Amino acid sequence: MTVRWDDLSPAEITVLETVFWSSGISRSELAEQSGFSRSKANMATAALIERGMLDETGPQASSGGRRPEALLLSASMGVLAAIDLGASSVDVALVAPDMTVLAHHTEAIEIAAGPGVVLSRVKNLLRDLRKRCNVRAEKVIGIGVGVPGPVEFDSGLLVAPPIMPGWEGFSIREYLRDEYASPVFIDNDVNVMAMGELWRLHRKLPNFLVVKVGTGIGCGIVCNRMIYRGSNGSAGDVGHICVDPAGERCHCGNQGCVEIMAAGPAIARQGTEAAKAGKSPQLAQVLTANGVITPEDVGQASRGGDVAANAIIKLSGKLIGQMLATVVNFFNPSHIFIAGGISHIGPMFLAAIRQSIYQRSLPLSTRHLEILYAPLGDRAGVIGCAAMALQETMRVRGVLPGGQP
Amino acid sequence: MTVRWDDLSPAEITVLETVFWSSGISRSELAEQSGFSRSKANMATAALIERGMLDETGPQASSGGRRPEALLLSASMGVLAAIDLGASSVDVALVAPDMTVLAHHTEAIEIAAGPGVVLSRVKNLLRDLRKRCNVRAEKVIGIGVGVPGPVEFDSGLLVAPPIMPGWEGFSIREYLRDEYASPVFIDNDVNVMAMGELWRLHRKLPNFLVVKVGTGIGCGIVCNRMIYRGSNGSAGDVGHICVDPAGERCHCGNQGCVEIMAAGPAIARQGTEAAKAGKSPQLAQVLTANGVITPEDVGQASRGGDVAANAIIKLSGKLIGQMLATVVNFFNPSHIFIAGGISHIGPMFLAAIRQSIYQRSLPLSTRHLEILYAPLGDRAGVIGCAAMALQETMRVRGVLPGGQP
Repeated sequence: MTVRWDDLSPAEITVLETVFWSSGISRSELAEQSGFSRSKANMATAALIERGMLDETGPQASSGGRRPEALLLSASMGVLAAIDLGASSVDVALVAPDMTVLAHHTEAIEIAAGPGVVLSRVKNLLRDLRKRCNVRAEKVIGIGVGVPGPVEFDSGLLVAPPIMPGWEGFSIREYLRDEYASPVFIDNDVNVMAMGELWRLHRKLPNFLVVKVGTGIGCGIVCNRMIYRGSNGSAGDVGHICVDPAGERCHCGNQGCVEIMAAGPAIARQGTEAAKAGKSPQLAQVLTANGVITPEDVGQASRGGDVAANAIIKLSGKLIGQMLATVVNFFNPSHIFIAGGISHIGPMFLAAIRQSIYQRSLPLSTRHLEILYAPLGDRAGVIGCAAMALQETMRVRGVLPGGQP
Repeated sequence: MTVRWDDLSPAEITVLETVFWSSGISRSELAEQSGFSRSKANMATAALIERGMLDETGPQASSGGRRPEALLLSASMGVLAAIDLGASSVDVALVAPDMTVLAHHTEAIEIAAGPGVVLSRVKNLLRDLRKRCNVRAEKVIGIGVGVPGPVEFDSGLLVAPPIMPGWEGFSIREYLRDEYASPVFIDNDVNVMAMGELWRLHRKLPNFLVVKVGTGIGCGIVCNRMIYRGSNGSAGDVGHICVDPAGERCHCGNQGCVEIMAAGPAIARQGTEAAKAGKSPQLAQVLTANGVITPEDVGQASRGGDVAANAIIKLSGKLIGQMLATVVNFFNPSHIFIAGGISHIGPMFLAAIRQSIYQRSLPLSTRHLEILYAPLGDRAGVIGCAAMALQETMRVRGVLPGGQP
């Protein structure tokens, strides 16, 4: 079926946007959320089904009465490609317009190997996934890429990425153009995760944060149901917020940045020190066996009751919470979602973050604040890449209004 | 002339909104900004003039060719009342829909005297202004109130306001209802100032902050061309952000809050200490003469070259800049406007804030960041109250879309 993208009416655009954000919505919910009468919503829905943009699935579980059917963005629209690059891994996926993951592959890769090595591998992986799903390149209508560094969203170029030597000024868009005609959208990894969570929570939560703790610390900001990127695209760059003016010197030149004192490498370093100083028999064993201590080793020691490991994890959570307390006073979000490789280092980590935020923020700001693990977890990156790709593709094609003002 | 508010077309709403945000706009600018063809914009404009909502003024200065005329919201729509309450003063004004101030009165008042005393005085002042301008109460179409405390915007009620004993739970709306049928909107003083600046800068600046430094420290946030109030209305409550974990204890219970260490009372206290310790001959003289040191005294001593006074002001600016560096890393605004009673304590203050922000923020965040005095200055509060009143009144009457989602 050929999809007709041109000349949508304002009512059709509203319905399309509502279904995008609320996959599996019933017709009555659709009318309610779009603010349209049932008949107006039904007319626009019929036109969109006719255009090949919406599908209606079979009856859903209902609270009673006539069983509602669910509206979804149609698979006829095409397929989204999601490429989520981390410091040391890549996730590649093909995703349907209703955000169903059709195929997904993850593997280790060193982002520092540079764009040539990394992206030629990504191209091969995408080809494999397409073959597996029997999807020609022409069916890919949008590509979303997440990268572990600062991005200028409009140009899609990386700006002085600290852990991505060789990527500055490199055009991922150009590189993919010989195989894919579809538009390519690039954002940093934590904005992409926030987009994934936003796609899922759009109706319920207008203002929340996704905080990723791994090798670095970053924050995705959702403000009035949009990803907020700031005036230069660097909003959410919280890793260099100072938590101790007399603290360790960071590679950025300042002292006491939360990233240098509390992220993965700090945890590993403190674990190594504890092992060498004889404060942790368990970590000393690991150090002897492996020659290095990883954050995961510290986490495992902590879960085994190791006192030194517990103290390291609590301190990390405390410092991150101290930084977030400042952010909470300023931004007053309803939810903070903790994500990233370090977030699951053990229950003490989240508890220490919470305690620190509640202690240092104003009561009014924390009255209804919830601090939780990110609900989409590992899937947030891939879903976020695909949701960003579809949203921006629809904007480029003029079937969604505006875009970030 | 009777204004017809009902059943505006979508094009009329867009034109009305565009003129609201760009008072004195020409017809060609209007077409450009609304995205309409000239003829569509002209048709909607004609309808709004016919409705009594728009006026067209005489020819404006032009760069050449046929001289454009300027479109304004019409005085026929009515008058806005602005009530800007401070800790120790009140500004009351009547403002036309194009934000021309028709009459303005300011006087000293103690907010702590409670709502009965303060608001009965405000009512009298408003009556005087109306008499002076020959405006009946029925001509007031909206009332905007700024208060020096946290407000729940939807209910208009103050939430645990620290310097406003007796105001918690008091309904300013109800109090004004016997004399005014128009809707009343209440927000905190710094959001109101931000609204004033936003009205003026709407087209040019989507993301900026207004920081008010006086007895306390607060911040108004403009995000995507809207006032951002957060999930509980407490966004921008930056006074209790920690700038020194080992610093002075604040009335909030924590240590080293920027407000207790850098706002007006801290400057006065440090000035008194300097005078008593013999570190400032000039302030010692003032203390002997007046028995107290005010922040203004410290400012005057600083302008006279007093070393101790200079150090006090520089420290205050440094600490406020340190807090703002954190906010800049998180929010990446394009502009920070410094306002409030302390902001003009001397050129060293702004210089110290700037230095501190540039030193502690990431280069990408500050690449285009400008830190300036608030352009509307003293008028921001009154203009902001009126702009908020008009915007919200138009929303309530259904002639502006949405509202804060």
